[in-house]
Amino acid sequence: MSVVQAASSLQLCRIMRPDDANIVGNVHGGTILKMIEEAGCIVGTRHCNTQDGDRCMAALVRVEKTEFLFPVFIGEVAHVTAEITYTSTHSLEVQVQVMSENILTGVKKLANKAALWYVPCSLKNVDKIMDVPPIKYASVEQEELGRKRYGAQKMERQETKARIEDMVPPPSNPEDPTKGQHTVGFSQSSLIHLVGPSDCTIHNYVHGGVTMKLMDEVAGIVAARHCSTNIVTASVDAINFHRKIIKGCVVTVTGRLTFASNKSMEIEVFVDASSLMEAGKEKYRAVSAFFTYISLDKANKALPVPPLKIDGEEEKRRFEEGNARYLQSKAKRLAEKERQE
Amino acid sequence: MSVVQAASSLQLCRIMRPDDANIVGNVHGGTILKMIEEAGCIVGTRHCNTQDGDRCMAALVRVEKTEFLFPVFIGEVAHVTAEITYTSTHSLEVQVQVMSENILTGVKKLANKAALWYVPCSLKNVDKIMDVPPIKYASVEQEELGRKRYGAQKMERQETKARIEDMVPPPSNPEDPTKGQHTVGFSQSSLIHLVGPSDCTIHNYVHGGVTMKLMDEVAGIVAARHCSTNIVTASVDAINFHRKIIKGCVVTVTGRLTFASNKSMEIEVFVDASSLMEAGKEKYRAVSAFFTYISLDKANKALPVPPLKIDGEEEKRRFEEGNARYLQSKAKRLAEKERQE
Amino acid sequence: MSVVQAASSLQLCRIMRPDDANIVGNVHGGTILKMIEEAGCIVGTRHCNTQDGDRCMAALVRVEKTEFLFPVFIGEVAHVTAEITYTSTHSLEVQVQVMSENILTGVKKLANKAALWYVPCSLKNVDKIMDVPPIKYASVEQEELGRKRYGAQKMERQETKARIEDMVPPPSNPEDPTKGQHTVGFSQSSLIHLVGPSDCTIHNYVHGGVTMKLMDEVAGIVAARHCSTNIVTASVDAINFHRKIIKGCVVTVTGRLTFASNKSMEIEVFVDASSLMEAGKEKYRAVSAFFTYISLDKANKALPVPPLKIDGEEEKRRFEEGNARYLQSKAKRLAEKERQE
Repeated sequence: MSVVQAASSLQLCRIMRPDDANIVGNVHGGTILKMIEEAGCIVGTRHCNTQDGDRCMAALVRVEKTEFLFPVFIGEVAHVTAEITYTSTHSLEVQVQVMSENILTGVKKLANKAALWYVPCSLKNVDKIMDVPPIKYASVEQEELGRKRYGAQKMERQETKARIEDMVPPPSNPEDPTKGQHTVGFSQSSLIHLVGPSDCTIHNYVHGGVTMKLMDEVAGIVAARHCSTNIVTASVDAINFHRKIIKGCVVTVTGRLTFASNKSMEIEVFVDASSLMEAGKEKYRAVSAFFTYISLDKANKALPVPPLKIDGEEEKRRFEEGNARYLQSKAKRLAEKERQE
Repeated sequence: MSVVQAASSLQLCRIMRPDDANIVGNVHGGTILKMIEEAGCIVGTRHCNTQDGDRCMAALVRVEKTEFLFPVFIGEVAHVTAEITYTSTHSLEVQVQVMSENILTGVKKLANKAALWYVPCSLKNVDKIMDVPPIKYASVEQEELGRKRYGAQKMERQETKARIEDMVPPPSNPEDPTKGQHTVGFSQSSLIHLVGPSDCTIHNYVHGGVTMKLMDEVAGIVAARHCSTNIVTASVDAINFHRKIIKGCVVTVTGRLTFASNKSMEIEVFVDASSLMEAGKEKYRAVSAFFTYISLDKANKALPVPPLKIDGEEEKRRFEEGNARYLQSKAKRLAEKERQE
Repeated sequence: MSVVQAASSLQLCRIMRPDDANIVGNVHGGTILKMIEEAGCIVGTRHCNTQDGDRCMAALVRVEKTEFLFPVFIGEVAHVTAEITYTSTHSLEVQVQVMSENILTGVKKLANKAALWYVPCSLKNVDKIMDVPPIKYASVEQEELGRKRYGAQKMERQETKARIEDMVPPPSNPEDPTKGQHTVGFSQSSLIHLVGPSDCTIHNYVHGGVTMKLMDEVAGIVAARHCSTNIVTASVDAINFHRKIIKGCVVTVTGRLTFASNKSMEIEVFVDASSLMEAGKEKYRAVSAFFTYISLDKANKALPVPPLKIDGEEEKRRFEEGNARYLQSKAKRLAEKERQE
């Protein structure tokens, strides 16, 4: 009964409880995302501390696009397996797999696959990025593929960083009661959350997984308001974590519909943080991302999504951009399917 | 209120944990309110089921004005003692006392005293109010005093019911970034919460204590935004729970400053509920109440509160009403002090 | 990155959070016990459902005496490994190991070893005990050792069952303020807990681990009151779970000191359950157990424990019984040490 685990891999599991799920028993996507990030943070922090120098914490900087392949239910056991799959000088990639196991029937299903990027921050000085010890690759090919993923995500992070610094003002019409049903304003939703001790790592910054759970919570409410049905997270676009959130902040999470096809909805979610104690300091945009939801009937079959009523140039532009992302991801899925056949 | 556990009394206690408190270690008023209501719900439900007929749950309909006398800290044990002190045909009064105990020094302090009114709802039909079995009073005088309290709260509940049905639209300018510091708009805050299984009683309605905890959370963020200091709940005005909130609802909790004296702030908090699944059904106002907060320095001494900048007739009217409540409660405190001397 | 795990073994892990620990950062024994039981329940339930017939849940019936070998701290990762080590016709034994890992320094320590006995209850009829599929043993000797452990625990369970049915009334003087410091009455403590959905398995009975966590919480309060210092769980005597606790019950957990040596305290903990809805039904004793605590200074070194002031024949008898258990376990530890040398 030994605890043999390579330093660069980790497995964690937990029974899904009523509080992890919606009222029809589907586990929230946010619960899964939080477990994924906990596994990534453990394996990344452990690896980066296998060298001399300052002790450090692995801070989440990016999650690649991830799809929810099978719903998980209350009473099932979610198994999360994390492995370090690439290291650059200052960052590392963790690939994570989530299997759901029904311990009554023995049935196991692949629920999710994700790839996360971490950067080691010194505990003495959180702005100091430490070196990452290199891992050994199974083959030269493996390393080369990792280097390509590294390059691709780096470019995208720089791009979105430029975009976020050219900061859009926070959405201005939260849940306007004068708006009609199925408009953007009708379902737009916001929550605030006071960051508590259990939300934070030991260097007092909010776990990326906690932020993702809040984002999924708001996105789910937006989707349910639009459909008035049971909704579940289908996928989450790549998320970049540009700025850390420290203990004692208030976090405002806002979600609004950008696009709806017949089968799915895209919800843009913004996370803004502000310190309660430092009045001078401005509120800042910490994260933003796109969540895709689908609507389900009682037998967990997909339902059609009501069309989104667009109002004004801004909403139109966002709709078209959402449509482009939708078509792109559809084409990508088809191409993958063909490749597999 | 001795600790002989008759069916009509109850004691509960719990160690205060980091998540129960703010970052300087003060336990949230909302945590205390939630414990108070849990004790009241247990003692009330237990008492109302000592008779034949449908099984029932005690549903909270009113909390009398309550003051936070001493702050409670992480690591202390909060002891909550609840006793049924009056029964009418269809409702009962529970008086609750909260003592904080520092188990390392042995020091005990009276942290809070509260009075709650419950009504037994049948589990078969939640709209059917059951009879309440009578309790025995220590003296005729005791019963007479209870009857007076019963009459007074009944009148006030009817009054506020009339007011709430003549429903004001939800506050329209949540956290307007164009507003300057110390205005009402600057600190106004809103949260949404998807009601989960742990928020609910066994008949699937939200515990009154859960609602009060959310209200205190929003009020605390409003107060902290206004002051940029450590703030604590000083008192809560009487709260009437006119309409129940069922599992699966989304609750929107909004707080805004109405009044500030040099020493304290008054925050009005609204709770609106809406079903995610029934698009036809309107959002409804479930509860509203006034919370009073004070600002503290690092040694837990009171700090002056920045003056509230008022804008427009509406805000002016609310400020004057708040001022009247402030003066009234000040006069009452003085009168009580004199009586005791 | 495959999820290869024998059906009869399981690993789970989690970062320890502030709420898992006391104010000096020591993770509560109850948090560890709860994780141990979650692992045991998963592996037991999974194993018992590898056959045809009713689906079933593994219900905890006994935990063997367990010792806390090293304290675990906030920020460390607790790894729990569970393996089925014996099966009888209607019960199974799970052995569990808890390793704490400091992911900053890489240091790992064995924090706890435990053995738990489960019985599979049909989901259709909770009183129907299912057959347990046999496991394969590494050797005939292994099986023989398991059979001995099975026989020993069975005898002890029957003995304590007889004792518990001859039920002593619940302790009568909770926290008597007239009692002097260091008496039994001075530190005696009680808590009540309303069983919620997340406390329960999918067949709506309270997880054994949840009950143990509550027991440890009360025992910790008793110990801290007696010592006025930082205290930690040193060991827990064998616990027998004679009667299940169903969702919607109120659980009263009471702890009182029975014995104190210079180095440790023994606290007896009772768990009584009662239905809120069925007034006719009596409160019943669900579990009772002995917890041993030690007192620590700021450097985590053992401190002397104040002598326990005994009052009356009852307390004297319990003290002597506690002393006998203390001497017996001391002798056992010495014998084991000698064997290892």
